[in-house]
Amino acid sequence: MKVEIGVKALGANERQADLNRRRLLEAGWVAVNLLSSPGSGKTSLIEAVLPRLRARCDVAVVEGDVETARDADRVAGAGGRAVQIETRGACHLDARMVSRALDELDLGRPQRGWGLLLIENVGNLVCPAEYLLGEELRVVLLSTPEGDDKVAKYPEVFRTADVVVLNKMDLAPHLDFRLERVREDLQAVHPGVPVFPLSARSGEGVDPWLDWLVRNARERLELSKSAGA
Amino acid sequence: MKVEIGVKALGANERQADLNRRRLLEAGWVAVNLLSSPGSGKTSLIEAVLPRLRARCDVAVVEGDVETARDADRVAGAGGRAVQIETRGACHLDARMVSRALDELDLGRPQRGWGLLLIENVGNLVCPAEYLLGEELRVVLLSTPEGDDKVAKYPEVFRTADVVVLNKMDLAPHLDFRLERVREDLQAVHPGVPVFPLSARSGEGVDPWLDWLVRNARERLELSKSAGA
Repeated sequence: MKVEIGVKALGANERQADLNRRRLLEAGWVAVNLLSSPGSGKTSLIEAVLPRLRARCDVAVVEGDVETARDADRVAGAGGRAVQIETRGACHLDARMVSRALDELDLGRPQRGWGLLLIENVGNLVCPAEYLLGEELRVVLLSTPEGDDKVAKYPEVFRTADVVVLNKMDLAPHLDFRLERVREDLQAVHPGVPVFPLSARSGEGVDPWLDWLVRNARERLELSKSAGA
Repeated sequence: MKVEIGVKALGANERQADLNRRRLLEAGWVAVNLLSSPGSGKTSLIEAVLPRLRARCDVAVVEGDVETARDADRVAGAGGRAVQIETRGACHLDARMVSRALDELDLGRPQRGWGLLLIENVGNLVCPAEYLLGEELRVVLLSTPEGDDKVAKYPEVFRTADVVVLNKMDLAPHLDFRLERVREDLQAVHPGVPVFPLSARSGEGVDPWLDWLVRNARERLELSKSAGA
């Protein structure tokens, strides 16, 4: 009984996610879902790339948190157009919340020809993996202080990733973090997934990831246009 | 409908948690529930205190993880009696899982007069807060690399804490982590909750926390005896 209701709820979420996706693509926007543990540096990474990203496309940000609007404030401080979702206890974003955020953002046609909508999920390495939001791309962050055993312990979220970012590489010299172990575990869980070690704080390694993101987002957009034609 | 089922499930969990609690106390055991984000250092802290703890009481450990038995192996390597719960996708431990772990551990009477059962929850700062397991004490860990804004963002788990451990203080010099900000946010969310900054890796600050834990666990056990008399 309990399982059936869960399946139904996930089905309804997937339908809403598909509506979000189409609504965005038709208007020229590509959504990216960022997932990680609390404190892996999702907001810091968004802050780090905003200026460079805004030179290449329109950018908007949806910030998910259990409580507070601090992240939307941080992103707005960095010059970003941001809206905050406070889940009030819920452990993940869902497609309906994102739909309401889209109403609030009222995106319209991107002035630079196309736009990127960055959706920062609630900090949680388990539950958000199950919920599509309408994204074309899923970015999963792992930060070095969390330890090099997290891929094996929380495989599901890494299985669903289009790209994995290893953040806080600047702290690695102070830690017992073996990059090779993470790569091996990723290879077992999700063979071939691209991995970008970087530091949002120092900026090192951020550009290659940003290039990957822009290229793949554009490809998805072109693909949806040709599929629609 | 959905909410009602959720409430019923939580009610059933609380009844099972109460059964676990009484079963443990009657046998002379006090359960401690450790909660935090993934990679905050719950297992490292358990490893760090095991030798000193075993000089003062019997110790057993329940390790909760979404997948893998690595943590139980680590604790067993440190000389601990450990059983692993793999939740296979579930984002928190519940009282029924712990009840089955108790069957498996088959604790019996502690040889040193009393025992401490350390239950390491799944790494997740949201969902586990809602589920009692049968614990007398709840320890919530936050590690410095996660950032000093986490108490305000995830207040519920800190509201339910009997004690807060700030781990990885040895990394603080490399971070923008303001201890005072965490203390202020804790004071707003849970006035008076004891806070222990420490480093499980270096060992600094671990002893005062261990003393607090042993003293409070013994008090709870005495209290339950006098209530039963």
